Amino acid sequence: MKVSLAETIRTYNQKGWSPATSTNYSFIEDGQIWVSRSGVDKSSFRAEDFIPVDENGKVMAPFEELKPSDETMIHVLIYRLFPEAKVILHSHSKNPVLISTKCAHVFSVGHYELQKGFAGVKTHDCTVHIPIVENAQDMRHFEQILQERKSDIQQHCFIIRQHGTYAWGENLFSAKRHLETLDYLCECELNQF
Amino acid sequence: MKVSLAETIRTYNQKGWSPATSTNYSFIEDGQIWVSRSGVDKSSFRAEDFIPVDENGKVMAPFEELKPSDETMIHVLIYRLFPEAKVILHSHSKNPVLISTKCAHVFSVGHYELQKGFAGVKTHDCTVHIPIVENAQDMRHFEQILQERKSDIQQHCFIIRQHGTYAWGENLFSAKRHLETLDYLCECELNQF
Amino acid sequence: MKVSLAETIRTYNQKGWSPATSTNYSFIEDGQIWVSRSGVDKSSFRAEDFIPVDENGKVMAPFEELKPSDETMIHVLIYRLFPEAKVILHSHSKNPVLISTKCAHVFSVGHYELQKGFAGVKTHDCTVHIPIVENAQDMRHFEQILQERKSDIQQHCFIIRQHGTYAWGENLFSAKRHLETLDYLCECELNQF
Amino acid sequence: MKVSLAETIRTYNQKGWSPATSTNYSFIEDGQIWVSRSGVDKSSFRAEDFIPVDENGKVMAPFEELKPSDETMIHVLIYRLFPEAKVILHSHSKNPVLISTKCAHVFSVGHYELQKGFAGVKTHDCTVHIPIVENAQDMRHFEQILQERKSDIQQHCFIIRQHGTYAWGENLFSAKRHLETLDYLCECELNQF
Repeated sequence: MKVSLAETIRTYNQKGWSPATSTNYSFIEDGQIWVSRSGVDKSSFRAEDFIPVDENGKVMAPFEELKPSDETMIHVLIYRLFPEAKVILHSHSKNPVLISTKCAHVFSVGHYELQKGFAGVKTHDCTVHIPIVENAQDMRHFEQILQERKSDIQQHCFIIRQHGTYAWGENLFSAKRHLETLDYLCECELNQF
Repeated sequence: MKVSLAETIRTYNQKGWSPATSTNYSFIEDGQIWVSRSGVDKSSFRAEDFIPVDENGKVMAPFEELKPSDETMIHVLIYRLFPEAKVILHSHSKNPVLISTKCAHVFSVGHYELQKGFAGVKTHDCTVHIPIVENAQDMRHFEQILQERKSDIQQHCFIIRQHGTYAWGENLFSAKRHLETLDYLCECELNQF
Repeated sequence: MKVSLAETIRTYNQKGWSPATSTNYSFIEDGQIWVSRSGVDKSSFRAEDFIPVDENGKVMAPFEELKPSDETMIHVLIYRLFPEAKVILHSHSKNPVLISTKCAHVFSVGHYELQKGFAGVKTHDCTVHIPIVENAQDMRHFEQILQERKSDIQQHCFIIRQHGTYAWGENLFSAKRHLETLDYLCECELNQF
Repeated sequence: MKVSLAETIRTYNQKGWSPATSTNYSFIEDGQIWVSRSGVDKSSFRAEDFIPVDENGKVMAPFEELKPSDETMIHVLIYRLFPEAKVILHSHSKNPVLISTKCAHVFSVGHYELQKGFAGVKTHDCTVHIPIVENAQDMRHFEQILQERKSDIQQHCFIIRQHGTYAWGENLFSAKRHLETLDYLCECELNQF
């Protein structure tokens, strides 16, 4: 998992989804959460740049000297709220960031074939709703915001306003599908504004 | 053919034409139809990911365990309706998808040098018409829609609304020409809306 | 020269400047004109795909079986009209094509630092003028059009309406500079329409 | 440093940030300033293409035969005005260039998570201001312009109108962060005009 996720991280960097060392990633393997280290340039992210944290986001021995991503608590919270999540991807792609400057609290999109990229969506002939949650630097505050919106989150992803996207899945393949589907739909709809 | 088409599939994936495992491809060799397997990430599509189907889209022995693309019936239908087709390409590129949100039933475009990329078009000094057909999840229904539009399809390609493009040719070279020509013309005209 | 120009051709193909086998290229070495062969996919263009032609565009022995680009006469004409030209590049990049749908007969652009990329332009503090010539399938007709506009062509390049760009230089380095400068300025100005 | 900065230069070239041989780069190592040579195609820039200059921008022995970038004086001036600068990057990316055609003297942007990419910015919940300085071919004149704006330059970067961006940092990592952050914010805000 470490190796294939590190490869995905480098590929997404080339797409411009993690400019300036931003973004963070995690996975659960054998019950253990692994989170990307803080401040690594994503163009050269390696399998060794994941570090283990406990369910409160605390770095585990013997890695206490290393700093996990500042947004580790968001990962831990997603694992708690959405039990299907085993891999979490974060992106700063401009498409959802720009959509979040156009929409109030929800990005609603319908009638695209590609929305079937979300697990459980079987037809283009419906509308899907992706919550836009407010950004917050204080992790406790953000935790509260996310918990309040939990029931709105139906497509394994959400947008943080003027910040980026979190998407997850039961494996890397599924998490990538959700992230790429959201990005595609945002790019298409941006053209309509 | 398998090897060169698989390479084309990976190249188109890098262009963003097959996000989130979407799209499908096929070819006829020695009278046998080969279709891409369902659910393969197109960034790593290999020659072995094609499976043989009969003219009704049924998987042939000894591959019955494998699942062909959900849209296999569209490929079979194109081979039946357009005898010149030996290679069929499908793309989810955003340019035709967005054009299909701007035009009613036909994308009409003229006076571009590149329209000569369509086999049979000899001058920029005319207008070509590319049908936009409605999307449908039910393959029988879609078959009916496509048959009704058959006589409108003059340039070896059509657009499915908010879904993507099918293009074909008598060989891979020709099919690529038609797909890339359509995409280019859609991108140019999007700028005019 | 063959090797480095072939490499440039493949690089420009990856930028999307030669979709669907389009575009053509040439150079003069030891007094001999070499032109790209017709119908080659530019993603795999090789040094061997250049063929020698005389000053009237006729293929020379022992290559008479091979077909030079349909636009060979444009290359021959540019060499005749602009003696500084030793390398000619052609691009179907969408930026100049779209500019040609917005401007009448000239693309005028000023106050960009990058216009110093045109040989002879020493400051951003002026306006440069790039002619837009009408497209024509008949080469004799096009020759006439180009000759009439000769005195307007001051920056080693021109745009053909809804077709593409020709740019040249005394060597490959200089020809690339002119082509890339024009493309950049077109892309910037498109944003203003 | 030479090797890793040369690699960054080639990567930025692929992004289209240095068309037509434009842009220039420098660093200080062991108290010595090294500047990129003039007229090198950035797609093939090598570690050997840096030459040492003194604090007045004069090329040092035994390199007197080589020509440093025409904008060497801008680098020297930035090192003098901003002591934290050890690496300086220059980009002709279209995003800041276009922003400079929309804004008067300052590009102000707020509420994006990514603005934390600027060293010292701790929250999305504020507005940052990036000066747009006028372009000038005369280096003495430009020096004067830049000195007058010095106190406005708070984020380790500035935009030159219709020209490009300079960004710097205490090391390559930090300089890249500032350049990529500015580019991202410009691209996002362009969408709002």
